Amino acid sequence: MIVGLAGGVGGAKLLQGLALALPDVALTAIVNTADDFELYGLHISPDLDTVLYTLAGLANPTTGWGIAGDTRVTLDAIARLGRDPWFILGDQDLATHILRSERLKAGTPLSAIMAEFASALGVSTTILPMTDDTVATMVDTPAGRLEFQEYFVHRHQEDDVLGVEFVGGADSSPAPGVLDAIAAAELLVLCPSNPIVSIGPILAVPGIREAIERASAPVVAVSPIVGGKALKGSAGKMMRELGKEVSARAVAGEYLRLIDGFVLDQVDAHLLQSVSSLGVRALATPAVMRTVDDRVALARTVLDFARTVRTGRALEVE
Amino acid sequence: MIVGLAGGVGGAKLLQGLALALPDVALTAIVNTADDFELYGLHISPDLDTVLYTLAGLANPTTGWGIAGDTRVTLDAIARLGRDPWFILGDQDLATHILRSERLKAGTPLSAIMAEFASALGVSTTILPMTDDTVATMVDTPAGRLEFQEYFVHRHQEDDVLGVEFVGGADSSPAPGVLDAIAAAELLVLCPSNPIVSIGPILAVPGIREAIERASAPVVAVSPIVGGKALKGSAGKMMRELGKEVSARAVAGEYLRLIDGFVLDQVDAHLLQSVSSLGVRALATPAVMRTVDDRVALARTVLDFARTVRTGRALEVE
Repeated sequence: MIVGLAGGVGGAKLLQGLALALPDVALTAIVNTADDFELYGLHISPDLDTVLYTLAGLANPTTGWGIAGDTRVTLDAIARLGRDPWFILGDQDLATHILRSERLKAGTPLSAIMAEFASALGVSTTILPMTDDTVATMVDTPAGRLEFQEYFVHRHQEDDVLGVEFVGGADSSPAPGVLDAIAAAELLVLCPSNPIVSIGPILAVPGIREAIERASAPVVAVSPIVGGKALKGSAGKMMRELGKEVSARAVAGEYLRLIDGFVLDQVDAHLLQSVSSLGVRALATPAVMRTVDDRVALARTVLDFARTVRTGRALEVE
Repeated sequence: MIVGLAGGVGGAKLLQGLALALPDVALTAIVNTADDFELYGLHISPDLDTVLYTLAGLANPTTGWGIAGDTRVTLDAIARLGRDPWFILGDQDLATHILRSERLKAGTPLSAIMAEFASALGVSTTILPMTDDTVATMVDTPAGRLEFQEYFVHRHQEDDVLGVEFVGGADSSPAPGVLDAIAAAELLVLCPSNPIVSIGPILAVPGIREAIERASAPVVAVSPIVGGKALKGSAGKMMRELGKEVSARAVAGEYLRLIDGFVLDQVDAHLLQSVSSLGVRALATPAVMRTVDDRVALARTVLDFARTVRTGRALEVE
């Protein structure tokens, strides 16, 4: 079994590559839910849905999130009723939010709901939320403490980030199946997602980091930072404002003592030695996934690379 | 001020006629909410929405309910996720249900929510739910007790109706503004809606029937039964199965001691004498509203007729 930790678009793309590269191998995605929020009374899970839609082959190829060809009729009608349509909710997409909200209200855990959705959409990858509990990424800014989507979407990441906290993280438990999947994994992949607010919350769920440290499988991370910039999303600006270097090397640094191997883009090949000096095997390869073929190619490279990686962590534990 | 009691399509059409015929006169609609139900976790108010959309000029002219030109993208996606799309929810329409559900969950009364929606859609008519409390029309059938929409839409009215109960009715209170509007009215209209399950629940809210009986304004009802059949909806079959005659006369009988005047369609002119013998002034006129012009014409006829009607009830009280 292969286990991938992922946030949104970049992570979902590599997960799809892994699923397509190894159709006969069980794949489990452990997905960030700390960006989840409530809008118009509906529970929105942006990262889970991006992973779901991508693996179902439904994702919008231009944005990476949302559903291809989706319309915005309901959102326009919400605006007509006087509300600010600041977060894009497509009409097909809304079905997911409506049914998830209904099931959550009835007491069904998020993990069970996602299993139902994946089954209905013919997705064979197991999509697990990191937790069934409520964890919320809060972003501290000069304008005060903001919910993540308020910072990221509504205010267009324009506020300086002074700090990040995963409220509820310390009191949360891994969703059913998460720790078992990590223990049973033959390969653990930290997908190219924001190390602070996508992979960070997953690792902050008590038990998950420890399970990865204990796992016998090699752990390989793929950098979401290419050429000193985030390919997508908030990683670049946020890392800089938090006083971190915006580089693939800095991402490897975030995962120190957790990973055995690190994959960075070929444009960052000059950083290989610097990453290796952290005690991590490093590989430079084309890591920008524009097409589905790119995703499969990167997945194959990661799989090949993982075979060459000794589990240094495991050796330390032995 | 004119006050109309209404259920769904037929009632909404006459309300629109009244609003257009007397644009400078305050109009208040008191609308049935006993058909309200929850679907996919959303609170649906079919009659309130039909009145809202009709008065906003948005209603689907073919069906009378829903919004003209609305699409069903979300409902198709709900079906793709494995759920039965038995109740048609258009995409524009969904905005209403989503925002209403959100506001109800936050504790806002339904009456305040409808006032917000009416304002946002430029509707000057005051649209009042009969109550802010929960009242549910339950239909007793050989297959057991059914929620109204389950009977009416999901099971296509195929079950015999053994009885009808408005659960919660006896414990409900009129929504704010309802009793004041009735007391202040210069004319009260029982719109052409199902006397049993549309007007019936309104009259079952403690205080409303009494307020109408006490009102100084004439009360005129318009028959929803034309030529022995309901123009729309469940009235005909339901009246028959409850052992009632399916006729305009039987509708007048349902409203006995409540109305001063009764308007029936010209095809039922032969019933005029029979209705008059109930002690009610009766008028035969073209009462089928196919076009907006028909609605205005019928509204004008009702207004003219009302001026000729002595308030027999009021005389009794005096």
